[in-house]
Amino acid sequence: MARIIGSSIPNLPWEEKPENFRYPVWRYSGNPIITRDNLYGANSIFNSAVVPFKGGFAGVFRVDNISRDHTLVVGFSDDAINWKLEEKVIFKGFDPRVCEIDGKYYLSWVNLRPKGTTIGLAVTTDFMEWEQLEDACYPVARNGVLFPRKIGDEYVLLIRPCDKGHTPYGDIFLSHSKDLTYWGKHRFVMSPVKNWESTKVGAGPTPIETDEGWLMFYHGVLTSCNGFTYSMGAAILDLEKPWIVKHRADCFLLSPQEIYEYVGDVPNVVFPCAALADSDTGRIAIYYGGADTVVALAFTTVDEVVSFVKEHDLLGDK
Amino acid sequence: MARIIGSSIPNLPWEEKPENFRYPVWRYSGNPIITRDNLYGANSIFNSAVVPFKGGFAGVFRVDNISRDHTLVVGFSDDAINWKLEEKVIFKGFDPRVCEIDGKYYLSWVNLRPKGTTIGLAVTTDFMEWEQLEDACYPVARNGVLFPRKIGDEYVLLIRPCDKGHTPYGDIFLSHSKDLTYWGKHRFVMSPVKNWESTKVGAGPTPIETDEGWLMFYHGVLTSCNGFTYSMGAAILDLEKPWIVKHRADCFLLSPQEIYEYVGDVPNVVFPCAALADSDTGRIAIYYGGADTVVALAFTTVDEVVSFVKEHDLLGDK
Amino acid sequence: MARIIGSSIPNLPWEEKPENFRYPVWRYSGNPIITRDNLYGANSIFNSAVVPFKGGFAGVFRVDNISRDHTLVVGFSDDAINWKLEEKVIFKGFDPRVCEIDGKYYLSWVNLRPKGTTIGLAVTTDFMEWEQLEDACYPVARNGVLFPRKIGDEYVLLIRPCDKGHTPYGDIFLSHSKDLTYWGKHRFVMSPVKNWESTKVGAGPTPIETDEGWLMFYHGVLTSCNGFTYSMGAAILDLEKPWIVKHRADCFLLSPQEIYEYVGDVPNVVFPCAALADSDTGRIAIYYGGADTVVALAFTTVDEVVSFVKEHDLLGDK
Amino acid sequence: MARIIGSSIPNLPWEEKPENFRYPVWRYSGNPIITRDNLYGANSIFNSAVVPFKGGFAGVFRVDNISRDHTLVVGFSDDAINWKLEEKVIFKGFDPRVCEIDGKYYLSWVNLRPKGTTIGLAVTTDFMEWEQLEDACYPVARNGVLFPRKIGDEYVLLIRPCDKGHTPYGDIFLSHSKDLTYWGKHRFVMSPVKNWESTKVGAGPTPIETDEGWLMFYHGVLTSCNGFTYSMGAAILDLEKPWIVKHRADCFLLSPQEIYEYVGDVPNVVFPCAALADSDTGRIAIYYGGADTVVALAFTTVDEVVSFVKEHDLLGDK
Amino acid sequence: MARIIGSSIPNLPWEEKPENFRYPVWRYSGNPIITRDNLYGANSIFNSAVVPFKGGFAGVFRVDNISRDHTLVVGFSDDAINWKLEEKVIFKGFDPRVCEIDGKYYLSWVNLRPKGTTIGLAVTTDFMEWEQLEDACYPVARNGVLFPRKIGDEYVLLIRPCDKGHTPYGDIFLSHSKDLTYWGKHRFVMSPVKNWESTKVGAGPTPIETDEGWLMFYHGVLTSCNGFTYSMGAAILDLEKPWIVKHRADCFLLSPQEIYEYVGDVPNVVFPCAALADSDTGRIAIYYGGADTVVALAFTTVDEVVSFVKEHDLLGDK
Amino acid sequence: MARIIGSSIPNLPWEEKPENFRYPVWRYSGNPIITRDNLYGANSIFNSAVVPFKGGFAGVFRVDNISRDHTLVVGFSDDAINWKLEEKVIFKGFDPRVCEIDGKYYLSWVNLRPKGTTIGLAVTTDFMEWEQLEDACYPVARNGVLFPRKIGDEYVLLIRPCDKGHTPYGDIFLSHSKDLTYWGKHRFVMSPVKNWESTKVGAGPTPIETDEGWLMFYHGVLTSCNGFTYSMGAAILDLEKPWIVKHRADCFLLSPQEIYEYVGDVPNVVFPCAALADSDTGRIAIYYGGADTVVALAFTTVDEVVSFVKEHDLLGDK
Repeated sequence: MARIIGSSIPNLPWEEKPENFRYPVWRYSGNPIITRDNLYGANSIFNSAVVPFKGGFAGVFRVDNISRDHTLVVGFSDDAINWKLEEKVIFKGFDPRVCEIDGKYYLSWVNLRPKGTTIGLAVTTDFMEWEQLEDACYPVARNGVLFPRKIGDEYVLLIRPCDKGHTPYGDIFLSHSKDLTYWGKHRFVMSPVKNWESTKVGAGPTPIETDEGWLMFYHGVLTSCNGFTYSMGAAILDLEKPWIVKHRADCFLLSPQEIYEYVGDVPNVVFPCAALADSDTGRIAIYYGGADTVVALAFTTVDEVVSFVKEHDLLGDK
Repeated sequence: MARIIGSSIPNLPWEEKPENFRYPVWRYSGNPIITRDNLYGANSIFNSAVVPFKGGFAGVFRVDNISRDHTLVVGFSDDAINWKLEEKVIFKGFDPRVCEIDGKYYLSWVNLRPKGTTIGLAVTTDFMEWEQLEDACYPVARNGVLFPRKIGDEYVLLIRPCDKGHTPYGDIFLSHSKDLTYWGKHRFVMSPVKNWESTKVGAGPTPIETDEGWLMFYHGVLTSCNGFTYSMGAAILDLEKPWIVKHRADCFLLSPQEIYEYVGDVPNVVFPCAALADSDTGRIAIYYGGADTVVALAFTTVDEVVSFVKEHDLLGDK
Repeated sequence: MARIIGSSIPNLPWEEKPENFRYPVWRYSGNPIITRDNLYGANSIFNSAVVPFKGGFAGVFRVDNISRDHTLVVGFSDDAINWKLEEKVIFKGFDPRVCEIDGKYYLSWVNLRPKGTTIGLAVTTDFMEWEQLEDACYPVARNGVLFPRKIGDEYVLLIRPCDKGHTPYGDIFLSHSKDLTYWGKHRFVMSPVKNWESTKVGAGPTPIETDEGWLMFYHGVLTSCNGFTYSMGAAILDLEKPWIVKHRADCFLLSPQEIYEYVGDVPNVVFPCAALADSDTGRIAIYYGGADTVVALAFTTVDEVVSFVKEHDLLGDK
Repeated sequence: MARIIGSSIPNLPWEEKPENFRYPVWRYSGNPIITRDNLYGANSIFNSAVVPFKGGFAGVFRVDNISRDHTLVVGFSDDAINWKLEEKVIFKGFDPRVCEIDGKYYLSWVNLRPKGTTIGLAVTTDFMEWEQLEDACYPVARNGVLFPRKIGDEYVLLIRPCDKGHTPYGDIFLSHSKDLTYWGKHRFVMSPVKNWESTKVGAGPTPIETDEGWLMFYHGVLTSCNGFTYSMGAAILDLEKPWIVKHRADCFLLSPQEIYEYVGDVPNVVFPCAALADSDTGRIAIYYGGADTVVALAFTTVDEVVSFVKEHDLLGDK
Repeated sequence: MARIIGSSIPNLPWEEKPENFRYPVWRYSGNPIITRDNLYGANSIFNSAVVPFKGGFAGVFRVDNISRDHTLVVGFSDDAINWKLEEKVIFKGFDPRVCEIDGKYYLSWVNLRPKGTTIGLAVTTDFMEWEQLEDACYPVARNGVLFPRKIGDEYVLLIRPCDKGHTPYGDIFLSHSKDLTYWGKHRFVMSPVKNWESTKVGAGPTPIETDEGWLMFYHGVLTSCNGFTYSMGAAILDLEKPWIVKHRADCFLLSPQEIYEYVGDVPNVVFPCAALADSDTGRIAIYYGGADTVVALAFTTVDEVVSFVKEHDLLGDK
Repeated sequence: MARIIGSSIPNLPWEEKPENFRYPVWRYSGNPIITRDNLYGANSIFNSAVVPFKGGFAGVFRVDNISRDHTLVVGFSDDAINWKLEEKVIFKGFDPRVCEIDGKYYLSWVNLRPKGTTIGLAVTTDFMEWEQLEDACYPVARNGVLFPRKIGDEYVLLIRPCDKGHTPYGDIFLSHSKDLTYWGKHRFVMSPVKNWESTKVGAGPTPIETDEGWLMFYHGVLTSCNGFTYSMGAAILDLEKPWIVKHRADCFLLSPQEIYEYVGDVPNVVFPCAALADSDTGRIAIYYGGADTVVALAFTTVDEVVSFVKEHDLLGDK
């Protein structure tokens, strides 16, 4: 049985799997958990990142305001379901990911620069004061996701280079750094393979360390005649050489099927940006954006998801 | 009064037209009749084909699985509304049409070949064992629909050539064959004319023989600023020279208006692939895909639809 | 406090702002007020124009019929909410605006010409007999909106030049005319600036004269990976030199958030074409198309909207 | 025999037609007559306009400088072949046309405005002092060409609306004005018909009045897999209703065939902007740009060209 | 040593290989052999087909006239270098191929149909009277090339399906027919592999039978930032199963390098449509279009070319 | 007077400026200096890099072979004009730059990786043995150019991120590294501003150190209706903070004007990749690709070019 390596989160939000439900990931019945009504001046709140913080939870939230500017704000919660968002914008940009490394909280996000987006990096200990680091790259890139610990003596960052528009391609790479300032030893991780992700793939939540490898949820994009459809897949990366994909599901684990995923500012989007994982129970709570409009929540366990990925292993197809 | 030429289907599914409803085609109140819940592992079930079979009904169903692979499976039903689908994939591909010719059941579908889609052909007598024939064409084509009997001494196949993407054009042609292996005498049938179908048109269900000509339902596609919209139209083709269009409605007969047509994997799609027609009553049950996600059912009678087409005759506009 | 300059409309439709609602424009609870069911043969009724007329209200309505032809029909109403539409098509084309100047009613609309759309102009006194004037331009243009009085001794027309497709740009210009036949002294008014309108902008209802300037509602378009999103903004133009923008909100005032705005023939569209403004109370009722399918109604007051625009003044950002 | 209506130009540049040459338009053996060497700082000099002036000739020349800015400068010549260009830029923009009306010289050109090109208008009596008039339109348009006299009591301007890029369409329209400020009564003149011009057409030199009608040389554009090819055609317009095309050659009269037309900044361009026509002899000298790099000269006679157009009359094909 | 299977052509045009020239195909020093000057009214003459005929040579020539209409005319020659072209258009269309089968001459070409191009077929015995057969396909296709004898009891046709524009893809397929009317058993032959042909490939001259297999010259297209570049490659197909590629050069054998290939109506085009092969000497004369403007000639021998293909065998790379 | 900081190159190739020539950069009269004839199997040789080496010169040359594969080979020369190229391919890829830092020769080039191009880095002391370093970035980038010395204690690399096609944008950035493995502190340097470079800009030769700053030649790209035109510009960067542009010419210094620049595999390309600069005389020899087909040579002096840049200073326009 697969096991999560990491801290316990006894107050991880949870709801049992519906009876007779046969897939490994199930939605929270109270979805969406965050909407534009959570903050005055918000057009939409989605694609957001949460972590355990001081016995409760903190998060960085993508708030597109009524100018459709992309901003990041901080929020706090006791139960990781009901969130109180701050009004103050901490950074311009979108699609934040947050992870704790050695007691500090690192934020990576899609930073808006005049010549295109980069991966912004910042660090905090209290979610109030933030120190902005050097951008991890020049434009244009998205989906920068840090691993939650150094591997060897290096920080590792998943990243998806892109173009200046609605990029029709996208592969996951990773870069190494000794100091979060200079990055190198770039490695290819994975490309789109199956139909459901055939346009592009990009890393999602901070990878979850398990005894089987890094569990990486990611989004894959399919292009229909009416635009992009974003779904969530999963892969397991080698613990020490994380650019080696050990297993990878040949199918999505979550795709737009509910009205708050089908309908909204961008129809047909399921976009995961964070996951809470409890090492005691193996429970995982996944936070994802719905239709670029709301934040929703889904559940799985490390064992269900690892079993499912290995059972539907794309690499076994070869 | 128009009359269907063909067999009787006493157990054809049916629901009377709603009172005060003034259009010739009306939806089944229990729509959608098939959803992803009908088969484990299905992302969506839509654009499917049914025929009377041994006193009940059989069909070939488009099942896009959770990899978004396109597959065809067989299903059976007593009432043509509640369907039991088999798990076994009979062919890769999509958008099946089925027709009976001389006691055999012929399947034509969009066959996936490495260099693009072709029209695959296969034949069965029991829906269990299938013999695959030569593809009817080289890539790229879609919407291959056989007429339900030889015309003269030749099989006739409606077909819509296309390109390798979300083709922005599409005309209906037909080809002749003496043996279902070699095809020739290709004839142009029809092009988009009116706004509702201005991007492309493609044949839908197996044409229905009537004393007025072949009743051909087809789909037409309009391109809005948000992508394609698929609706259903109807035309009447000459019985002996089916490339001659005798009448053609200048408007759609069914377009996306219900939530299961507006919302789904591909918003705004009504895509007919099969029709059951009872020669005793003139009743017609049309099976169509909704939003590339579900199978839905609509009704008309040969008389209503032929009258409507002649009343709104595009060719009378000339 | 801002004040409307113009006639009183004591029977202007009205509904109080919901409690705790903090934005300046709120929707009518009975939305949508007009659907395809209002007229046999209509596929959709939207983007329409209304004016006070003989103690009640008259309007010109965009009806796309079931061929998806674009037509204009006349309608009448006592309360400006329940409308009776005539079957007769007065002109081919779409997106009408109507205004009264010196006791005559002028219609401007997107006129369909063989080589692209122009701004058609017509005049009536009774909404029954229409005199068509010269088109205000050669192809291709849209969103031609007359000011409701001469400025100096000239008629003034807002206009948005475009290309022959789903134009990816759009700026608002205006032209002057002494006789509604010859137009010149073309002036640039405004371009897209903020994200919510970053693809293009176009004038909406007939501008409303206020003591602060002309209140111009307009639509702005954002391009997501799934197509265009239309929202409504507002600006205040100089009374005598209306090409000078005095204030302009840096955000939308209304954007697609309700199911009838998110879902329909063209998802995610809020498109205002008319507004009734009562000089006695300062109340304003805005008529807008929802998802290119229905007509909906929203409310504000001149004071709320002018205050909001000045508070969120884009020009103050400079 | 066709006859030019207009003044005599005894010093019109001329070279006899080469023996055995069977087409109606022949090139000057000294081509190109103007190159970048004519002016320091010029990247290219092309698409320029000349008129008889004070016994010699004056012109307005398109000079793209080494920043590739588009500028207009004035030049003078005794023989209309050897030109002396002034350094001073009179206007920003390109593709000038010049004509004399009632003793004044009018310049129309593609004027650079922040939101796209318009048709600029200016007037001079001496080619030194220029008075700029109102632009004849809002953006985006090109190829504005005035008729050399009022028709009725109105000025008439040929114009080709376009989009903001390398427009893939283009039709010739015309507008009327009583005062060169306000324009209206826009009329469609002609569209692409034959392959050689199948992408777009635009007016060239000032139309030449003949007893058969206005002789209008124009450019037509074909799109090959390697871009646009510009050639020159000819049509004859009704003298009093110049939007009526009386005759139109179904073929080009001049197309890129010489190295200075095939090779340069934009390969494969023949672009006529001016013509001198001598009513005494019927001789016509056509000035055209070669490959967007140089000015070249070609000859014909009114009789040859009118005969050729009538012989190859596209309208006779109907 | 490779050997041609076929008739002898003692008067095959020939020029020895230049000294020190190390590539297998060399140009005729008198190139181009046919230009627009060969026929009044021609804009360009290129991409043409020749065969031995009654001791001399006959051919079908692509003549784009000065309307840029695509036409085919017949020509005759004693030496296969100096050609006399007929004025009469035998068919509309382009890119002809001619081959003799059992004493009759078959023409295949890109036939212009209202809905796109097809492969036209016609037969003659004297190049004066032509019988047109059924088109070999519905639109859209190009590059239909017949093998010069039946294989088994079937005619075989190489063909390249395409879209309606400047198609960005292209694979070679072949079809079988017993009667030149009905075609089937479509087989994939080859796709682009190397950079020089990375956009698309299409068959060129009638394949030449050799003891090593069918020698097929073909064109390959590369897309630079300035459009398409057409070069010539070669492959050897199995004699009995011609869809099996036995050898294929990994490089071009001829590419645009001379001014008449670099410069013309479509820059950078070498497009072979015919080859004469003498079984006595093994000499081969290849006719190809230069820059879509002229006909040029190049030479090789069966031994040189077969050796070269095997030496640079793409299939050996695997 | 501007002065080159660096070593002397007494045998720098040189030709005096033609009399009366008024621009700062002039071509070598023997151009092109390298063609496909320099190496058997080459389709084209262009965009290449040279440096002084052991009293003579060495270089790395882009050789596209007859498969149109992109390869790099080494060459040597005594006079820097007549080159002997090695057959051995040292790396796959294109557009090499070479510079000496501390006695070693560093090569940066556009490295071909499965998911797009990166900047490859390699080092040699003898041009025979090469050590490949880590790529400087993940895909997709081009135009990686090292500065010829550390600035502070960091290597600095100019770079132009791009997309996977013929990228329609391009800005120059630079990155810092302490070890040539990890890169960071990415800084924006410059974007297209003027028409001649309006599509994109990219660094050219290794920057030349002068007492005025780093002299950076770069290429700028304009998009005409027939594709891209590449010209050469120049800017002067701050010596210590090289992302600060001190001066920048508002015009090109060299653009396609000669037949070997206008005509070839990619028409209209001047693409500089290397420059030799002699500190004794201030003479500079610039090596550039012509039409993606040949290598050509041009001359200037540090004083002429610095004066010209300052005289035409774009930044002075502000």
